[in-house]
Amino acid sequence: VAAPRTREQRRADALAILGAGEADVWVATASADGDASLVPLSLGWTGERVVLVTESRSPTARNVIASGRARMAAGASRDVVMIDAELETATPLADGPADALERFATQSGWDPRPMADADAYLVLVLRPIRIQAWREANELAGRTLMRDGAWLD
Amino acid sequence: VAAPRTREQRRADALAILGAGEADVWVATASADGDASLVPLSLGWTGERVVLVTESRSPTARNVIASGRARMAAGASRDVVMIDAELETATPLADGPADALERFATQSGWDPRPMADADAYLVLVLRPIRIQAWREANELAGRTLMRDGAWLD
Repeated sequence: VAAPRTREQRRADALAILGAGEADVWVATASADGDASLVPLSLGWTGERVVLVTESRSPTARNVIASGRARMAAGASRDVVMIDAELETATPLADGPADALERFATQSGWDPRPMADADAYLVLVLRPIRIQAWREANELAGRTLMRDGAWLD
Repeated sequence: VAAPRTREQRRADALAILGAGEADVWVATASADGDASLVPLSLGWTGERVVLVTESRSPTARNVIASGRARMAAGASRDVVMIDAELETATPLADGPADALERFATQSGWDPRPMADADAYLVLVLRPIRIQAWREANELAGRTLMRDGAWLD
């Protein structure tokens, strides 16, 4: 097993995972009555915000709008970046934030804007509150890289 | 993009993913007040049940005991097996079901039984109710392989 990485190294690695082309993210949300949803979605990362595009009628969209939050995982199960985030904006695709959508399309390789049924989709912009990263059990200590929306030194 | 697989092929591929050595699974659960939890855990697959081992005080353990259910993802985001399951048993590690624990230890490469703090852990046995598998968007149709606990023909 490799030695645990420094916080600085983990942050650099986490940003590389979040910014990678065609990255996916596991998105977990909960309904008001305690039902968990989990789906893989294409990831857009602006450097500060997570950008997702999903159908308005999906459980993810419904839950994140109702609860205002989501828990996400990027990377692999043994090289993970966990993100607890709060919803900043949920906008119909046609009115979506241009910079965020441009970044999403470039990074994911999927531009949803020209879709025939684009009006069935929402753009979700989420603000990370807590970010954690670890590989193996020896990295569970020190896994928190961001707390209350601020990167730790 | 490859042609969509047959249901028969998807089922064989899904069983291979679930039975693979050192496989991990993403486990999403919800608290009663609508907070989503998501963690990667080592996977045990008996052929019919999912076996997990986690700390009794973890959100996953608390939520799955309270709600009786979990949603899990195995495989990769573009070769995924999604499992909606209900909790069958939650047992302290020392009293855990021997066959399930033996399978878990063999498959995962991690035998939790000799741990010094074994009494802090629970064995969760979950019964799949619905299993879905897809790779790309062209496999979303026909993704359901098991419904109401029964494999579809």
